[in-house]
Amino acid sequence: MYSFRNDYSEGAHPNILNALIQNNNTQEEGYGLDKHTQNAIAALRNLIGDANGSVHLLSSGTQTNLIAISSFLRPHEACITATSGHIAVHETGAIEATGHKLLTVNSSDGKISPQLIEPVLTAHHFEHMVKPRLVYISNPTELGTIYSKHELQELSDYCQRKNLLLYADGARLGAALVCKGADVTLEDMYKLTDAFYIGGTKVGTLFGEALIIRTPHLAADIRFLIKQRGGLLAKGRVLGTQFEELFKDNLYFDLARHGNDMAQFMAEELAEEGCAFWIDSPTNQIFPIMDNRIIEDLEGQFQFYIWAKTDENHSAIRLVTSWATSEEAVRSFVSTYKKVRKAGQDLLVTA
Amino acid sequence: MYSFRNDYSEGAHPNILNALIQNNNTQEEGYGLDKHTQNAIAALRNLIGDANGSVHLLSSGTQTNLIAISSFLRPHEACITATSGHIAVHETGAIEATGHKLLTVNSSDGKISPQLIEPVLTAHHFEHMVKPRLVYISNPTELGTIYSKHELQELSDYCQRKNLLLYADGARLGAALVCKGADVTLEDMYKLTDAFYIGGTKVGTLFGEALIIRTPHLAADIRFLIKQRGGLLAKGRVLGTQFEELFKDNLYFDLARHGNDMAQFMAEELAEEGCAFWIDSPTNQIFPIMDNRIIEDLEGQFQFYIWAKTDENHSAIRLVTSWATSEEAVRSFVSTYKKVRKAGQDLLVTA
Amino acid sequence: MYSFRNDYSEGAHPNILNALIQNNNTQEEGYGLDKHTQNAIAALRNLIGDANGSVHLLSSGTQTNLIAISSFLRPHEACITATSGHIAVHETGAIEATGHKLLTVNSSDGKISPQLIEPVLTAHHFEHMVKPRLVYISNPTELGTIYSKHELQELSDYCQRKNLLLYADGARLGAALVCKGADVTLEDMYKLTDAFYIGGTKVGTLFGEALIIRTPHLAADIRFLIKQRGGLLAKGRVLGTQFEELFKDNLYFDLARHGNDMAQFMAEELAEEGCAFWIDSPTNQIFPIMDNRIIEDLEGQFQFYIWAKTDENHSAIRLVTSWATSEEAVRSFVSTYKKVRKAGQDLLVTA
Amino acid sequence: MYSFRNDYSEGAHPNILNALIQNNNTQEEGYGLDKHTQNAIAALRNLIGDANGSVHLLSSGTQTNLIAISSFLRPHEACITATSGHIAVHETGAIEATGHKLLTVNSSDGKISPQLIEPVLTAHHFEHMVKPRLVYISNPTELGTIYSKHELQELSDYCQRKNLLLYADGARLGAALVCKGADVTLEDMYKLTDAFYIGGTKVGTLFGEALIIRTPHLAADIRFLIKQRGGLLAKGRVLGTQFEELFKDNLYFDLARHGNDMAQFMAEELAEEGCAFWIDSPTNQIFPIMDNRIIEDLEGQFQFYIWAKTDENHSAIRLVTSWATSEEAVRSFVSTYKKVRKAGQDLLVTA
Repeated sequence: MYSFRNDYSEGAHPNILNALIQNNNTQEEGYGLDKHTQNAIAALRNLIGDANGSVHLLSSGTQTNLIAISSFLRPHEACITATSGHIAVHETGAIEATGHKLLTVNSSDGKISPQLIEPVLTAHHFEHMVKPRLVYISNPTELGTIYSKHELQELSDYCQRKNLLLYADGARLGAALVCKGADVTLEDMYKLTDAFYIGGTKVGTLFGEALIIRTPHLAADIRFLIKQRGGLLAKGRVLGTQFEELFKDNLYFDLARHGNDMAQFMAEELAEEGCAFWIDSPTNQIFPIMDNRIIEDLEGQFQFYIWAKTDENHSAIRLVTSWATSEEAVRSFVSTYKKVRKAGQDLLVTA
Repeated sequence: MYSFRNDYSEGAHPNILNALIQNNNTQEEGYGLDKHTQNAIAALRNLIGDANGSVHLLSSGTQTNLIAISSFLRPHEACITATSGHIAVHETGAIEATGHKLLTVNSSDGKISPQLIEPVLTAHHFEHMVKPRLVYISNPTELGTIYSKHELQELSDYCQRKNLLLYADGARLGAALVCKGADVTLEDMYKLTDAFYIGGTKVGTLFGEALIIRTPHLAADIRFLIKQRGGLLAKGRVLGTQFEELFKDNLYFDLARHGNDMAQFMAEELAEEGCAFWIDSPTNQIFPIMDNRIIEDLEGQFQFYIWAKTDENHSAIRLVTSWATSEEAVRSFVSTYKKVRKAGQDLLVTA
Repeated sequence: MYSFRNDYSEGAHPNILNALIQNNNTQEEGYGLDKHTQNAIAALRNLIGDANGSVHLLSSGTQTNLIAISSFLRPHEACITATSGHIAVHETGAIEATGHKLLTVNSSDGKISPQLIEPVLTAHHFEHMVKPRLVYISNPTELGTIYSKHELQELSDYCQRKNLLLYADGARLGAALVCKGADVTLEDMYKLTDAFYIGGTKVGTLFGEALIIRTPHLAADIRFLIKQRGGLLAKGRVLGTQFEELFKDNLYFDLARHGNDMAQFMAEELAEEGCAFWIDSPTNQIFPIMDNRIIEDLEGQFQFYIWAKTDENHSAIRLVTSWATSEEAVRSFVSTYKKVRKAGQDLLVTA
Repeated sequence: MYSFRNDYSEGAHPNILNALIQNNNTQEEGYGLDKHTQNAIAALRNLIGDANGSVHLLSSGTQTNLIAISSFLRPHEACITATSGHIAVHETGAIEATGHKLLTVNSSDGKISPQLIEPVLTAHHFEHMVKPRLVYISNPTELGTIYSKHELQELSDYCQRKNLLLYADGARLGAALVCKGADVTLEDMYKLTDAFYIGGTKVGTLFGEALIIRTPHLAADIRFLIKQRGGLLAKGRVLGTQFEELFKDNLYFDLARHGNDMAQFMAEELAEEGCAFWIDSPTNQIFPIMDNRIIEDLEGQFQFYIWAKTDENHSAIRLVTSWATSEEAVRSFVSTYKKVRKAGQDLLVTA
């Protein structure tokens, strides 16, 4: 049964697999000192506009988040995140396991703004409470929404004024950079945060995330931290080769764009059929609201998650597309939806 | 320049890469619930002789060690290891970073025995000291030596009597199982330890280690711990496919045997030339002792580590071979050694 | 200026100081193995009705909470607490610093019930999220409210059914046990929780809290944990002597009762003057709502905290009394309030 | 039975108890902001010669060590200590529990020197190993030996050159400052370390240690750390009053001197009887070597620890005196020793 559950159901883009084969037999230095990792780093430094940027290839998003945040903070310093933030919900307390409290703020669209941070700073005013020190955002958010350059600039300025670090989780960053309405570049991500990461797993690699640190004192000794948390692969070439290839010829952006296109195409088709949406997401996840009976029928033919109950008879479902999603699969879902919906209406008419 | 520095200089065995390609396009469940991971687990359960064994595929050795040990211990419980143990020296304090002290014992061959443990238990007798609770061994050790079945049985029995957990690091386990004189099987490793892991990285995979836990209460909730420490790959299929292939048709054992054979062949050739050895290792690392001037000459033509100074004019070097080492490379090293040595003698004679 | 800010402004009850003097010159075993600690433990075991109860005297509330909770939980296990819980707000992330996430539930009166816990259990259903394992309550709560025996029984039963540990912070437990409407005894606290602590600091000792653990496997090795976290005083006699004295002749209960009486007397007097209350607390903290101008005037003559804004012109203040609060001080506050209020009304009439 | 086991068998010096009584009834600010703590801090700032020194009163030595060290280090940074160091042996892995590895060096007299540190720095050269960052010493050491000003200066200079922090555990610091041959002052301790602590427990207080931090960035936010680890007493006045009194009229130094005098008097008397010593300690612990049969006899009349076996028939015992040890007790021990020894010789003669 075809799955729209997530964007990591398939393996890697063929170019990436081919590169792994091409590079397989040479001897390379271990632990990320190989030539392919160096090439990948060079490509990323070029994109962020800093020939000395601190770039590190890691294995998973949770690993990247926990290494970065635990490396940046002293023991009493805490991390501000949206209540829906990935680190707050779906990483099994990975940040707390390194000793740091998360301070959560409610955000209807998953985004963080100075207005949401301000009360947290006001409330945490003395040594009986943790010290807010790092703001965690993700772009896009868990709800598929994105930050505009203006919003990011404003947040960045605010953090600087308040002596807060700004860290961005970019598990699906590609989707945020190339979607309709996007005006943020990788260079902006670099300039406006203290550190961020570029996810590979959800945009065509087998695995791998690139942590990029701008603020020099945060980058100091970071390889020690990576090793200590188990993040240094002996065959770093495997990560190096993948990112080297991903950032050749715009592959990263093309794959992200394809994922977005598939989702937005599906959204348009569903909207035409009268579907409303739980939240307006321009990236590769969409949240159409459907009658529960229709959802039940669709579940027999496609895999997806039911995300939220919107009223007694309706729910929002989450549909995720990726670099690997075929237009055919999308069309199939839409036409099935039409059929199911029509059958329901006929039934109603008949009754 | 050809390198004998380690056994992770090359990529993966072709079978493994091919399997990644073959399996690339299907949709699979994430986070290790895919069909290939299930197949790999089934193969490993078969080899350890327990249809319900708790098997988990992780990304790196340090990650595996820290997840296992921190999951097994309460905060005041400590880990006994040889002073030369990998967790004691070369994992950047990964175990301590999870809160646990290492108690080191000196061992000339890198192995741990009840006799070495006993004084540690005697010394740690009250609540002002940590409580020794887990014995960490590796097989083979950092020095390439191996445990006999008898030694392992004795250690296992002792640990049980003393309420100690026994955990084995198997980064190079394959080499220990198939070397000359070996009488330990995977089934023995399982039966005689509480947990151990089978390294893939050093025997032909791109990366990946299989953690296997026998003692049921230690296995409880282990996936939570894996996720919390960043060890759960979204595309678990990548690990699954590699281990599925590695344990097909004895590939794992064949690759390990090749690594051993290359090292032992090199050792014999060097011995014939009169080389003594720092320690007698039957696996894929050997430690010939050479005149420092010869070492210097060899360094111009091959990569390897100088391991220990043995006297004013001599040092032991470490030569490591792997599944990917060609006989040609070994022969080339040996003949270079002969040439260099002869040149030295001629020089001596002339002088 | 007289302070109603808290219940730890003064030193210790004279009986306790005298006991310290009486016992000063003998030689005693260190680290809580002295005769006075043993006597205190015996007295407490008697009160909880278990001759083998695991009782430990510690230095501070935060220390007690962090030692207990970090000792009870595995790394992926989390703690459920009211959003207003002391560990969630005012302990500088002490629990997170030991690696454990807090899951907060909103509670208008500071109390936790099965109804509040249930959605947390439902939401945390798989290994990408922490595992709720311990319920933290305090009795009285941060708002001065108390648990009835029925509520505690219900919560305890629920926790047992759901495999949750129940832990009670008793920094001000005395106040909860002897206030109007109280029907919970120390024996109930013991029987209905897995562990709890009896605060000394806020009811007449110089410092000291008694941690009591009922569930045997949680008590195992607890002295190791106490030592490891810096909680084992060399001169344990200092804690022992204080608790020995505190639990002689009902002193503990009498001191707690005096604190409550002073607060409730003040509450009645203020109510008679027409004061409403932010929350109905039967213990030694009360939260009268006053006109902001009155509060400002009172602040010139007494110390107290402004707790919450209730509307544009009014706020709730917190007044705390203790074993050391004199009736005279209470009367002085009340009469000042009356004067200030009358002056305000006269001004109003004149205007 | 009289005990020479340690220097914390008795309560507090009468002046200190009297001060607690004198100050008992006033209302004071909580958490170390009270007037007595401020006075104690002022007195200590005067002694260290810095009107702005960062001084904090804590409850126990282990607590002080773990708060200081965990606050000063980043996660991958390690602590160098003598193998016999208190943190390495007798604090139940408290430092490791905060995530930091201890690197131990063997030292026959318990002291650390640049010569002992140098090989550790050489060995730890890359990110697969922890980064040595802090040198832990105690003065006096666990063996009662002391640092000369010259040694301390040399160590301090070395640490600065090597970017190492120097931290001194002063549980018994008083004894080191006033013993025969001592040339180090509190001001020296301050100037030559980054941080150190002055123990109160072993020199006449009920409990309490004063942490003093010289290096400004290490002192930043330290009260957050103290609170987070459970070290902030609500009634900070209890610590404040004790240290206020301890540093009045040289009481601290007088009490320390008395402890030393008693030990040295006992040492002289025993030496006159022909006793040899395991190590030459000028402070309040001495290690006479005695025939095992004599030790056995003495054990029936006094409490002390057997410290080390020196040959088949002899052992070193540890005798500790304190501010509270009476000359009478010392004389009694010496005369008992003489009697026991004579009886043994008579027996020998008779036989």
